[in-house]
Amino acid sequence: MIYADNAATTRMSDAAIEAMTACMKETYGNPSSLYGIGQKAKEALEGARDEVVKAIGAEDYREIIFTSGGSEADNQAIRSAAEFGKQAGKMHIISTAFEHHAVLHTLKKLEKEGFEVTLLDVHENGLIRPEEVESAIRPDTCLVTIMYANNEIGTIQPIREIGAICRAKNVLFHTDAVQAIGHINVNVKEDNIDMLSASAHKFHGPKGTGFLYVKKGIKITNLIEGGAQERGKRAGTENVPGIVATGVALKEAIDNLEKNAEITQKKRDRLIAGLKEIPHSAINGDENSRLPGNVNFCFEGIEGESLLLLLDDKGIQASSGSACTSGSLDPSHVLLAIGRVHDVAHGSLRLSINEEITDEEVEYIIKSVKEVVEYLRSFSPIWRDLVAGKKEFIL
Amino acid sequence: MIYADNAATTRMSDAAIEAMTACMKETYGNPSSLYGIGQKAKEALEGARDEVVKAIGAEDYREIIFTSGGSEADNQAIRSAAEFGKQAGKMHIISTAFEHHAVLHTLKKLEKEGFEVTLLDVHENGLIRPEEVESAIRPDTCLVTIMYANNEIGTIQPIREIGAICRAKNVLFHTDAVQAIGHINVNVKEDNIDMLSASAHKFHGPKGTGFLYVKKGIKITNLIEGGAQERGKRAGTENVPGIVATGVALKEAIDNLEKNAEITQKKRDRLIAGLKEIPHSAINGDENSRLPGNVNFCFEGIEGESLLLLLDDKGIQASSGSACTSGSLDPSHVLLAIGRVHDVAHGSLRLSINEEITDEEVEYIIKSVKEVVEYLRSFSPIWRDLVAGKKEFIL
Repeated sequence: MIYADNAATTRMSDAAIEAMTACMKETYGNPSSLYGIGQKAKEALEGARDEVVKAIGAEDYREIIFTSGGSEADNQAIRSAAEFGKQAGKMHIISTAFEHHAVLHTLKKLEKEGFEVTLLDVHENGLIRPEEVESAIRPDTCLVTIMYANNEIGTIQPIREIGAICRAKNVLFHTDAVQAIGHINVNVKEDNIDMLSASAHKFHGPKGTGFLYVKKGIKITNLIEGGAQERGKRAGTENVPGIVATGVALKEAIDNLEKNAEITQKKRDRLIAGLKEIPHSAINGDENSRLPGNVNFCFEGIEGESLLLLLDDKGIQASSGSACTSGSLDPSHVLLAIGRVHDVAHGSLRLSINEEITDEEVEYIIKSVKEVVEYLRSFSPIWRDLVAGKKEFIL
Repeated sequence: MIYADNAATTRMSDAAIEAMTACMKETYGNPSSLYGIGQKAKEALEGARDEVVKAIGAEDYREIIFTSGGSEADNQAIRSAAEFGKQAGKMHIISTAFEHHAVLHTLKKLEKEGFEVTLLDVHENGLIRPEEVESAIRPDTCLVTIMYANNEIGTIQPIREIGAICRAKNVLFHTDAVQAIGHINVNVKEDNIDMLSASAHKFHGPKGTGFLYVKKGIKITNLIEGGAQERGKRAGTENVPGIVATGVALKEAIDNLEKNAEITQKKRDRLIAGLKEIPHSAINGDENSRLPGNVNFCFEGIEGESLLLLLDDKGIQASSGSACTSGSLDPSHVLLAIGRVHDVAHGSLRLSINEEITDEEVEYIIKSVKEVVEYLRSFSPIWRDLVAGKKEFIL
């Protein structure tokens, strides 16, 4: 089996599994308890927090709130900014059309509550232009929230520039960095980030954990009210084993980041070159400002879902877009945002690889996708019309 | 070491740890993915959901929403009821003064948003009277939320009667059953429950998972917006290993419930009898309508925190109240709610045991608590005043 869907979720690293299992067995105390085994859990928790601080270049352990994942972190950051914004009479939020649904759906809810949301256009290359962020900022803007790297097409946004603009304009800046953390260099200070969301299962950590970075001095409200955990900012007994494993996985990812990114990028580029040979295909998103492991193509005249199922038969596990929206028949909002028309957006394939994939596997994927696309086109009525000239090729 | 703080958190059962580890290693797919390993994860997830359905006597798998824990479930249930209540012009909520903070703090936030909250008195025995619920219900009441069993003093509320009243009056009824599930019989149908919150780490499952039961036909809004997971009611990639382990732990707990409760209750009663021998002590909460593993005492003239630390030295891990509020110097809001005065409430001890504790350990705890209380009193200025008659004994 070739697992090429690391953007959906990753297999936990052996070290993370080991740390998690050891913690479940031995450090089962409640970190809020005063006695020995509680304090041991507290230490383990704070050790993991220190790893996060180091990994993202934060200043202080008090800037990290552990959550149940990236979606919760996104929700908390945006809701909190909206609450304080409202108090200050600022009810305008800037985001983009191709954010993750954790962001978009939260914004939709806020619109119903009276907020005004500007969704910036994403350009054909899958990138946001900093100057367009700048001109969208108004005196009543309380938040700019733009993802670090897109979860479907892998494009890396000019976060540092956007952050600098927000800082200059004194507007809060949040980034959903779920796809970036552990894969490319992210430094909250250098990148001028005020709030950042991350998810552990995207960097070989466990499912059910993530974190929210909140720069010192920035106020944050709870999404989950209750006990005084996480300095009163996120209630509920801490998922100590999950958090400990998050720390281990993140440290591993950061320690090997440059090396792994280099290896992965080479394989990615070979995949891109190979798939480009398929006629009437196109890569989605900029080729250079792109996550090292992300390959995303559209193939005209086919259905993405059939493509996936046939690739699965060949032992290749990939996706057509975000896992979170699978089951829906609508084409990807990300592909629509970069200007793909419905028909073309339907025939998409995302391969998200890591450094473990072999050259042989890469060649096998290229060969398999070529075969499957050709096979599907052979009985596609749309393809027949295209070839017969009854419809015009787009790609 | 004698671990007597199972109400704060439990050690995961071996079967739950094993299930979790196997899932982390082998079933790492994203349950929203179409291919094999994704669908395997989906099956595992749904298998765990079926266990929950059976365990609480629900009707349907669609009634269960997996969350990151009890606090999240409480927040979602209450916020959702409030949102629909507001839409219907009903902005009155009934609860009790000794709920968990996940409930109380959410209600406090709602009060700021214009809701009116009636907190029912808790009687000296730690019980709520159904007739007082009934008379508190108004035409604009949108929710009654009352915990199944108290987390500090272990008293079990007349939930079935309260549920029947709410149903007759057509008012939504939610119960925080975090301390009850897996320890006493809970049946959502027979108990007339509309919504119920539970947490896995209280029944030897993992930290970071819990669930919310929502009766068929009752509308629920998201606390966490985003992907379409959990039938669109709770976004974020599902914590499959945690959920699978939750299913395993819950099945184990339910299969052995009667047997374990009987054993535990006997040890609890011996502990209560032994500690009653300490002069100027009193049990907190009703002796009969009480969780099988809960022992909670006040000892006059001492500080609970010192008591805990000295017990820890003797290898006994207990608490003075809820772990979620430790670190705070305020006395327990639960003990104040049942009428304990500040001075007395400060000298409290909660022992929460399970069936694994031996008779020898029970006797050792009794002996140790007696010694430590006597020792602490020997240099307590309050105790000296009490003995000298300068202050009056309360207990």
